[in-house]
Amino acid sequence: MRAHMANLKQVAAQAGVSSATVSRYLNGTLSLPQPTRDAIETAIRELNYSPNPFARSLSRGRADVIRMVVPDIKTPFFSALVAAVENAAFEREQELEIAVTLNRPGRESRYLDSVSERHVDGLIFVTNHPDVAPLEKRITAARRVVLLDENVPHAQAPRLFCDNEGGGAMAADHLADHGHKVVGVIGTGDEMYSGAARFRGFQTALQARFGAQAQILRKCGQGYTQEEGRRLCAAILDSGLPVSAIFVMSDEMVMGTLDELKARGLSVPGDISLISFDDILPLDYFETPVTAIRQPVEALGEMAVRILLDTDWNDPASRSRVTLLPVTLVERSSVASVTHPSKSNDSTGG
Amino acid sequence: MRAHMANLKQVAAQAGVSSATVSRYLNGTLSLPQPTRDAIETAIRELNYSPNPFARSLSRGRADVIRMVVPDIKTPFFSALVAAVENAAFEREQELEIAVTLNRPGRESRYLDSVSERHVDGLIFVTNHPDVAPLEKRITAARRVVLLDENVPHAQAPRLFCDNEGGGAMAADHLADHGHKVVGVIGTGDEMYSGAARFRGFQTALQARFGAQAQILRKCGQGYTQEEGRRLCAAILDSGLPVSAIFVMSDEMVMGTLDELKARGLSVPGDISLISFDDILPLDYFETPVTAIRQPVEALGEMAVRILLDTDWNDPASRSRVTLLPVTLVERSSVASVTHPSKSNDSTGG
Repeated sequence: MRAHMANLKQVAAQAGVSSATVSRYLNGTLSLPQPTRDAIETAIRELNYSPNPFARSLSRGRADVIRMVVPDIKTPFFSALVAAVENAAFEREQELEIAVTLNRPGRESRYLDSVSERHVDGLIFVTNHPDVAPLEKRITAARRVVLLDENVPHAQAPRLFCDNEGGGAMAADHLADHGHKVVGVIGTGDEMYSGAARFRGFQTALQARFGAQAQILRKCGQGYTQEEGRRLCAAILDSGLPVSAIFVMSDEMVMGTLDELKARGLSVPGDISLISFDDILPLDYFETPVTAIRQPVEALGEMAVRILLDTDWNDPASRSRVTLLPVTLVERSSVASVTHPSKSNDSTGG
Repeated sequence: MRAHMANLKQVAAQAGVSSATVSRYLNGTLSLPQPTRDAIETAIRELNYSPNPFARSLSRGRADVIRMVVPDIKTPFFSALVAAVENAAFEREQELEIAVTLNRPGRESRYLDSVSERHVDGLIFVTNHPDVAPLEKRITAARRVVLLDENVPHAQAPRLFCDNEGGGAMAADHLADHGHKVVGVIGTGDEMYSGAARFRGFQTALQARFGAQAQILRKCGQGYTQEEGRRLCAAILDSGLPVSAIFVMSDEMVMGTLDELKARGLSVPGDISLISFDDILPLDYFETPVTAIRQPVEALGEMAVRILLDTDWNDPASRSRVTLLPVTLVERSSVASVTHPSKSNDSTGG
């Protein structure tokens, strides 16, 4: 196949332009006058040049194709993350293939193997289920894999996360600034990297402010979904602990939390203050605009591509690097000051 | 290559299970006891079987890989559509590759060519820019392409849309039921299939109800974005026509419309009634929950996969079929009855 296939350079030579021009024309990043376009198209046709990435990988040994694997695409955080990676890949003249696993281990394994088999140049890998141990060896073996958003603990790969712990601390500080000492936390549990880190940051910061007066009731679900948000909010309200605020670890969960509060006739922030994490949904437009810790989605996408393309994969230190990007607080209207501070120290919590 | 590569049947035979079992195990859809998994994994290793889709396409002539091409993945409608196709593809045991074009013609062309070159089994193709003429021949040549959501007029391909015209009529009827005769329309123009069809349905229905009393001011933008929504809302308000309601052709545009109304101190539905199209964003949670025409996203995804896999591509009639799926009205709180009906007939409109 290699012998019969023209390369980009030959096409460029026949068309009388540079290889970069042909490449950018084919990528759609360059507008050219019609005669130049005609010359390139004629050269492509006459030389039987195939700009197909797989064909290129056969002829040149590299595909310029990277793949991004996400658990699902409907969750706004993941679709925003994919869009950010897409933009960054385009800037670097990489083609991006996106694959959705729905957290099915068989699919995850197959996509990881596609790197080992050199069908793609590398993988930006996002998983968000707890049973990741079977993936560890495959990730290490695949080499050119960047772990994004959630961790796979014992794999050897560069990792990129938002500063989940810092974000948790930021949420606690904001609630503490408004006098909230007795609070609920809704999210995932310690089996998820993000859930563990956000809670750790939150708990440490609230205790630093209020010491033993801080009471935190944590309820953990199976995923960052609206349904889990509603269920866990109900569990907190049913606990009897007089929480004045809830830290909700995702925008989706906020929707479920709002459902439950509304069903019980409770208002935000009159009865309960809320603070979210993600800030991807249009929280600005909600009945009570929701204060949130914002994930740096654009920066995460850009950095993920940079790490994938620029890491020295033969350097164990580079392959083990962890990068954290800072989060920010976006203040809106869902956190009010405690007007009747809870005096009770006899409730459950910790 | 073909001679050296074991097929699924050989793996199944050595492992002592059915081909379907191996296939479903590899797809991650089947949980098996450890001894069975070990037997399959051993057979795969010993026979050097590669479940990679491209390798499979070489050995079996078919890849079982379909590709979906979308303009962008951040717009909630497209991410929901991709998720729906993903679910349907999984049900049909097809692997789905997702590609984002950002409406760049070079990228669109390349993905279309990937079908001609048999790198994928077929394409579900979504584009939403007006300059689609150059794609027509490529789509016809590629054959196994389903056009979804927007049209590419002269291509020969089966098409699947929601009933845009019916949805426009439904929006007009709902506004008419509340007495709105002088209304604005914000969306795309006639160069887009969806914009043309939604407006045609809206205009026809409103005129059927109110005859010459119906006054419609239509403002057309370059895309269904928040920015365009805000700009076009401002244009309608600046026109001087005393509109009592606006039909906004996308959820994203509703956000921009709300921005502009808020900036001018106008309330929904007190000053202006709004009705949206899509119903993908969490409109239920908005300050005023927004009434919308809901697109049948799940059904569109399922049907797109069905058309791609079940069309007889040698039958010109099948290749030219157009399928419309019905939309529904989701009534919330953004449409109020006209209390001071506009008496003026001296304004612009049509």
